[in-house]
Amino acid sequence: MALGMAWGMAWGMVQGRVRKGRAGLGRSACWAGARPVWCARQQEVNPRVSFPAVQTRADQASAPNGEDALTALVGLVREDLEACNRQIVERMQSPVALIPQLAAHLIAAGGKRLRPLLTLAAARMCGYRGDRHVRLAACVEFIHTATLLHDDVVDESDLRRGRASANAVFGNQASVLVGDFLFARSFELMVEDGSLEVLRILCGASATIAEGEVLQLVIQNDTSSTEEQYLDVIEGKTAALFAAATRVGAVVADRPVAEAEALDAYGRNLGIAFQLVDDALDYSAQQEKLGKTVGDDFREGKITLPVLLAFQRGDEAEKVFWRRVLEEKQQEEADLPHALALMQKHQAFTDTIGRARMYGDKAIAALDGFPDNAEKRALVGVVEFCIARAH
Amino acid sequence: MALGMAWGMAWGMVQGRVRKGRAGLGRSACWAGARPVWCARQQEVNPRVSFPAVQTRADQASAPNGEDALTALVGLVREDLEACNRQIVERMQSPVALIPQLAAHLIAAGGKRLRPLLTLAAARMCGYRGDRHVRLAACVEFIHTATLLHDDVVDESDLRRGRASANAVFGNQASVLVGDFLFARSFELMVEDGSLEVLRILCGASATIAEGEVLQLVIQNDTSSTEEQYLDVIEGKTAALFAAATRVGAVVADRPVAEAEALDAYGRNLGIAFQLVDDALDYSAQQEKLGKTVGDDFREGKITLPVLLAFQRGDEAEKVFWRRVLEEKQQEEADLPHALALMQKHQAFTDTIGRARMYGDKAIAALDGFPDNAEKRALVGVVEFCIARAH
Repeated sequence: MALGMAWGMAWGMVQGRVRKGRAGLGRSACWAGARPVWCARQQEVNPRVSFPAVQTRADQASAPNGEDALTALVGLVREDLEACNRQIVERMQSPVALIPQLAAHLIAAGGKRLRPLLTLAAARMCGYRGDRHVRLAACVEFIHTATLLHDDVVDESDLRRGRASANAVFGNQASVLVGDFLFARSFELMVEDGSLEVLRILCGASATIAEGEVLQLVIQNDTSSTEEQYLDVIEGKTAALFAAATRVGAVVADRPVAEAEALDAYGRNLGIAFQLVDDALDYSAQQEKLGKTVGDDFREGKITLPVLLAFQRGDEAEKVFWRRVLEEKQQEEADLPHALALMQKHQAFTDTIGRARMYGDKAIAALDGFPDNAEKRALVGVVEFCIARAH
Repeated sequence: MALGMAWGMAWGMVQGRVRKGRAGLGRSACWAGARPVWCARQQEVNPRVSFPAVQTRADQASAPNGEDALTALVGLVREDLEACNRQIVERMQSPVALIPQLAAHLIAAGGKRLRPLLTLAAARMCGYRGDRHVRLAACVEFIHTATLLHDDVVDESDLRRGRASANAVFGNQASVLVGDFLFARSFELMVEDGSLEVLRILCGASATIAEGEVLQLVIQNDTSSTEEQYLDVIEGKTAALFAAATRVGAVVADRPVAEAEALDAYGRNLGIAFQLVDDALDYSAQQEKLGKTVGDDFREGKITLPVLLAFQRGDEAEKVFWRRVLEEKQQEEADLPHALALMQKHQAFTDTIGRARMYGDKAIAALDGFPDNAEKRALVGVVEFCIARAH
């Protein structure tokens, strides 16, 4: 059964359940017409959207490269991933219909499922043959989704961005509260798993993510931020969950601490590389091919490595420019092209990707101690996939 | 040592730690001047504010009434509460200084510590002599604080309210992210406790709180909401945490399931009574004595029992009024006094308090099976305290 099909079926099941609801809590704003604003927007939020079908080529796991690497990984753990998707759909349910409706906006609307894939593959690489990793992979995806929902909450000052993020469709409050629900649900899933070690790892990661996000807010619009601070931010907001996602793979497989630590190091370095590439892509034409807008970070005054490198290497006139656009947020139409030209001049983009490559190599090296198998090759391939997005 | 003193000392300790920080994460926006907007507001957020000293009268625990009941309760568990306050201060720390700074805005700025007090007293009533309940009480307060922070996040449409809530001082994004940190930290505290049963109770409550909050959002501005839906909201957003807070008291004391369920019922009914009184107070002059504004719920179009009763008992002209002010949010200066008059006419306030009394009685009855002791009397007294706020 194709992944997309399994997902579509799961969705049908879910819709039936949501419509029945529980007495007193089953009424949704949209289908009972309580808040016309949401009803009018239902087209934008169609929760029946299918998880895109993936062409799997498990036999190519030995030579993964870029997109192929992710495909190979999906092929290797396809059944686990289908089970994980079913768990996700099942456990994002609530008698309060707005919850699955809003969650679907992010969870069902595609996404690579990269983090849960890492948990599934790490566990299998460690020789695990049970199914605990499926629930934990769902749990990792819930934490990620909650973070995305909370990430997109806008501040008074940012209201004009008007993106089609969940908060733009449903409002800040709903995004925050559904994010809270998914956080709480992820902890419930962990408790069902029953391992205090797993709980420790994932709860710790959740606190670290929040710290990273707050630090990002603190250094935002501040060109005097350091590379070290930037690294603290991405280690927190991105790499901590990657590390936890892979580490729990070793824990469910009951492997020695050294292997758990190796998988932690793999995930952490991969996460840093992933975020570095993401931050470089924000200033790359490549971004448009991925259906995203160039310069979002620029408009928000987000401090990322490409900006820091261009700022640090710039002369005084350039520094004045960066301060005006990022700190004072005085931006004109020609500023983004000028910023891109300065980055080009100072090799900020290339060097950011080079840094990502370095962390990617560390991630691969962390797997050295594991015996060669298809999952290990796929995990190595994921590093290629992350870096290849830049090209 | 007075409670206020212990709290002040703990704060001094904390400040020292925050200022040292960890390399790379120790810089705060406020004292490094990165975001002048926060610096200018530092006066409003003085994190050195002391937890108000409480005049304890433990010897009066036998005859508690209203405020006295809370004082009696504090007197009974004073040492535990001091230990709990120390835990709270210690565990809200982070190398990212904005986190304790923002958390202090809510946690240190007073608050009755009602929920943690319930955990402490419930455990002691069950004969518990260890100190696990202290950490769990801190955990309960963290969940409560995170909820408050997320509650206050405003939507685009609500920007004009401009209250001095944390989000008004620090912005939506910071409030959301620090709330997430406190949520995650509370789960870390539970994991440290190590009981899966406790984790199950508190994680379940967290998911239920989020469901209640989302449902509240769904029925907001909808005068066709039912009393059953309103009850679902307050059971979720308020009573679930009261129930969990008291239930864990029986669990740490290793008491039989029947006692855990009795304490759950006590907390749940108390929580419903508490919220009913809160919702009545929003339309009462009494509210001003408590330093809060009358009619906040009215202005937001929040559906609470006083409104539902007045709406249901009103004639067609009155229903038109309620729909205009709550659904269409077309409010003029004379509307709040008119709403109050309609509530008076239909005994909406009195009947809401009557309903609170009924749930309060249920809460007291739930304690029937427990042997008489000072903690039990104090818990009965807390019910009096909650109801007495209305008068």
